[in-house]
Amino acid sequence: MTTILMPMGGAVDERRRPEVFLEFLRRAGGAQARILIFPQASARPESGQEYTDLFRQLGGGEAQVLEFRQRAQADEEENIRLVRQASGIFFAGGVQMRLSALLGGTRLEAELLQAYRRGCVVGGTSAGASILSKTMVAYGKGGSSPRERILQMSPGLGFTDRFLFDQHFRQKDRLGRLIYAVASHPGILGVGIDEDTAVVVEDDSHLTVYGSGAVTIVDGRHITATDVAESENGRPVAVANLIVHVLTRKCVYECESGQAHLASQPFEVANVNVSQR
Amino acid sequence: MTTILMPMGGAVDERRRPEVFLEFLRRAGGAQARILIFPQASARPESGQEYTDLFRQLGGGEAQVLEFRQRAQADEEENIRLVRQASGIFFAGGVQMRLSALLGGTRLEAELLQAYRRGCVVGGTSAGASILSKTMVAYGKGGSSPRERILQMSPGLGFTDRFLFDQHFRQKDRLGRLIYAVASHPGILGVGIDEDTAVVVEDDSHLTVYGSGAVTIVDGRHITATDVAESENGRPVAVANLIVHVLTRKCVYECESGQAHLASQPFEVANVNVSQR
Repeated sequence: MTTILMPMGGAVDERRRPEVFLEFLRRAGGAQARILIFPQASARPESGQEYTDLFRQLGGGEAQVLEFRQRAQADEEENIRLVRQASGIFFAGGVQMRLSALLGGTRLEAELLQAYRRGCVVGGTSAGASILSKTMVAYGKGGSSPRERILQMSPGLGFTDRFLFDQHFRQKDRLGRLIYAVASHPGILGVGIDEDTAVVVEDDSHLTVYGSGAVTIVDGRHITATDVAESENGRPVAVANLIVHVLTRKCVYECESGQAHLASQPFEVANVNVSQR
Repeated sequence: MTTILMPMGGAVDERRRPEVFLEFLRRAGGAQARILIFPQASARPESGQEYTDLFRQLGGGEAQVLEFRQRAQADEEENIRLVRQASGIFFAGGVQMRLSALLGGTRLEAELLQAYRRGCVVGGTSAGASILSKTMVAYGKGGSSPRERILQMSPGLGFTDRFLFDQHFRQKDRLGRLIYAVASHPGILGVGIDEDTAVVVEDDSHLTVYGSGAVTIVDGRHITATDVAESENGRPVAVANLIVHVLTRKCVYECESGQAHLASQPFEVANVNVSQR
């Protein structure tokens, strides 16, 4: 069974039959899809209904909002049942910590992970993208250079511990904080997703880009040196030998090999050893 | 095979045959132990040798320092071999992010996790305790009340994703930041460890306290409400229905049931339903 995770970079233009939602729907079963929307990251009560309407307009079978705002309501049998029946789960945007504070440690959270493992497509936009990883970006500052304490991390829902997703990436100038996060633990791949853009992660290893913007991959596995643990008082952080890929629509990235394949010349990128060791 | 994790709260009084180290040694095989010390969190070059001397004085079989400070050196065959042969792995104190920045994503990190899974005792003191969890406390401020952004979390080495360990707990007044972390994801149990104190975690679920201080367990699974995602500008964070246990030497905590058993009256604590639901 292929697992599918689909973080989106926020600000998807919903009036234009956006590719990122169409792809989410396609992966979730198209006209047979049963989409369950979690609106809890948003403070706007109408946000869930907006996505329900959108998915229905795009031809997405059933779409339903799972609305509750109290931890004590999370584990109600009806909620568990809906998660078990879903073919797609979608987290709306807002504040990611609202989701972890509400769902963390509940039986519903365990059911969500179980749904993911059985092949239910799990996606989200903006805060709904951040929440997907084990250690997530909670908030932080913009800027293209990493600086000490430029971001706050926090535990997410943990569908993956291999990636860390950042969103509104180019629009809010977030390369610096993504580099900072990767330098702090170079085993985690940083994935910065532009607005109106998404990445499909299959089996926690195979990435494909959709939408109108770019996805920036920050691979720290070959870092030779960093002073991330020494820098103080918000000073710039040094990092040597980062590997960065900027990928657009239909580009593919293979996590194991660290190879990126551009859409226009698939599988023709030479295998260059970039390590300075 | 029982897995054993042993975070220590720092500032262990090494002149007095400290119980926490004796217990670590006992679990690692006593006179047959093969202890491997990781000194990299510390900037003091002598810290590794100090622990080697200590473990030898306490009768701990072989004790050896694994010293290197460059990521490119992590995966040398000799290092892999030493980790594979170890019965106990010990992380010295200092700055925890030095360990994650150095080891994260290396083959050696994967070998450390493998060693833990095969039953090698994995422990550490101060920064060496923090680094053990998946999402770790990186740094933060003191104070008994949780406040917005009171701490910075970061990805650790990830021997467990169930606990978050904080250290120098009572001495540095860290209850506020531990509550903040737990409120941000109530599925994670906060474990605050005083100085000269340790907790043995068996099979990621059964905790026993050793040493002269206390271990504070912050269980957020029954939180009914929190504004952790709403609070701004360092203001206090509200949390309703936290469960807190303060445990001393030989007290036991069972993670699944959430029950604490005091050393003086084992298994006689009534099963009280503390949920307000």
